[in-house]
Amino acid sequence: MIIGVMGPEGSYSEKAAKLWTAKYDLCSAEFRYFADIEDTLLAAVQGKSDLSVIPVENSIEGSVGITLDLLLEKDVKMVGEVVVKIEHCLLAKGRLDEIRIILSHPQGLAQCRHFLKKHFPGTELRSTGSTSHAARLAGEFEEMAAIASPEAAECYKLNTLLSNIQDQKENYTRFIVLKAGEKDPNAGEKDPFKQASFSTCKNSPFKTSLIVYLQKDRPGALYEILGAFAKRKINLTKIESRPSKKELGDYYFYIDFEGHSSDALIKDALEDIKVKVDTLKVLGSYPAFKK
Amino acid sequence: MIIGVMGPEGSYSEKAAKLWTAKYDLCSAEFRYFADIEDTLLAAVQGKSDLSVIPVENSIEGSVGITLDLLLEKDVKMVGEVVVKIEHCLLAKGRLDEIRIILSHPQGLAQCRHFLKKHFPGTELRSTGSTSHAARLAGEFEEMAAIASPEAAECYKLNTLLSNIQDQKENYTRFIVLKAGEKDPNAGEKDPFKQASFSTCKNSPFKTSLIVYLQKDRPGALYEILGAFAKRKINLTKIESRPSKKELGDYYFYIDFEGHSSDALIKDALEDIKVKVDTLKVLGSYPAFKK
Repeated sequence: MIIGVMGPEGSYSEKAAKLWTAKYDLCSAEFRYFADIEDTLLAAVQGKSDLSVIPVENSIEGSVGITLDLLLEKDVKMVGEVVVKIEHCLLAKGRLDEIRIILSHPQGLAQCRHFLKKHFPGTELRSTGSTSHAARLAGEFEEMAAIASPEAAECYKLNTLLSNIQDQKENYTRFIVLKAGEKDPNAGEKDPFKQASFSTCKNSPFKTSLIVYLQKDRPGALYEILGAFAKRKINLTKIESRPSKKELGDYYFYIDFEGHSSDALIKDALEDIKVKVDTLKVLGSYPAFKK
Repeated sequence: MIIGVMGPEGSYSEKAAKLWTAKYDLCSAEFRYFADIEDTLLAAVQGKSDLSVIPVENSIEGSVGITLDLLLEKDVKMVGEVVVKIEHCLLAKGRLDEIRIILSHPQGLAQCRHFLKKHFPGTELRSTGSTSHAARLAGEFEEMAAIASPEAAECYKLNTLLSNIQDQKENYTRFIVLKAGEKDPNAGEKDPFKQASFSTCKNSPFKTSLIVYLQKDRPGALYEILGAFAKRKINLTKIESRPSKKELGDYYFYIDFEGHSSDALIKDALEDIKVKVDTLKVLGSYPAFKK
């Protein structure tokens, strides 16, 4: 089994994949590295990986916009989630006083916003495809430092100048595990809520993720959708809006809730929601993460 | 009157402020420039500006995380909104084939994500405090290009190598106009929903923005809040979640809706909501933007 992760080695996405494969005894899984979130997700779609692991949400900086967009645009299914503790370090080849440029993934820079503003107010900030890519670059030039993981420090033989530099000590990122959507489109059509769940994990509580686009000019439409969950006492774990990109003030809603799409109660709720919305995309049901 | 905008000259925030002051005949307003979103907002809080204009939401990339965070953390009131059409250009001193580094505000980079991935896959991307700051830097080094406005091209005498490079042709950013919160804390306590609205604009329809933090372990709490609006037929224009930063899966909700907090119907809804939530912060009522 090939697992697509964000590369190069030492990324948080690789760490998430290691945790996830260890949990499900997939020790034979082989990791393949991709340049950024988009390429890692596309690897699963295009068959370059069997599964791919990408970040979806961080406890300081919130949702990863590009991941939400790709979940809507591409034909993928969610089969798992894993939460990783994020402890950003400032890594460099040289000394603290030599730093002229700080590199990281935009989420890494955002999670250390206060730190950067306080300690490096004039320093140039550069975006990279992953935190480990930032670390690799920092290994090449002494005036560069990276915001990345302790593992990346080891991989690229960098000095850890400062540890735990994110703006809140408690910092977690939720990663999702994806596979390509159903190959046979008819299979999906016959049973739109059929979710291929990861076979080994039937014994833990499940979560389901979906995207809805509400019928326009129907005030209270979102209230009705939430009502379909509330009246069945289905617990929502997340609701997030994301621009439709058609016009300002027009949104898709991303909803996560407890339960499996094959449960009678959830099936019923989804049937109810289906007639109330313009678009419903069920992203998948998967075992809820537990430490 | 001093209006704080993101600097240097040529920023979209300055353009928003120009549109807004022209609309309300505030021709004598003087602009003062600040380094980034945080400094521009803090200028209003600290009395360095009477009003400040910062971006809150873009039609391609969604909410501006730092703005949402600051609206919660700092004592500010919203007094206006203005929507600006965003037409990003690729600006440089040199030629297209000389570009080694592309600079912009993180939102600018994100709004041009497809463009950058397609045309500049290996090029270094750098984050700046504003798009105009990117343009000013691009004026200093021939290997640098900026993603910024046509106005910035003019300001910094740069060549417009490419125009309208954002991933969707229709691209709009909503800016908000802020002032410092009530100076006298008792005034606020006596009437928590008292909103100082901008005096000259009483004749247009209003919008109100608020932030709520829901009581924990109360499933369906969000549904109840939306119900307070739905049963009064108050139209929501936006709902957005933002991490509380305390733990993953714990959120504040940002809600925008039609109406003024001094309207009887809205007052009634707010009283209803107040008892259902843990925290309610009314950010202000302001004239809804119209072209």
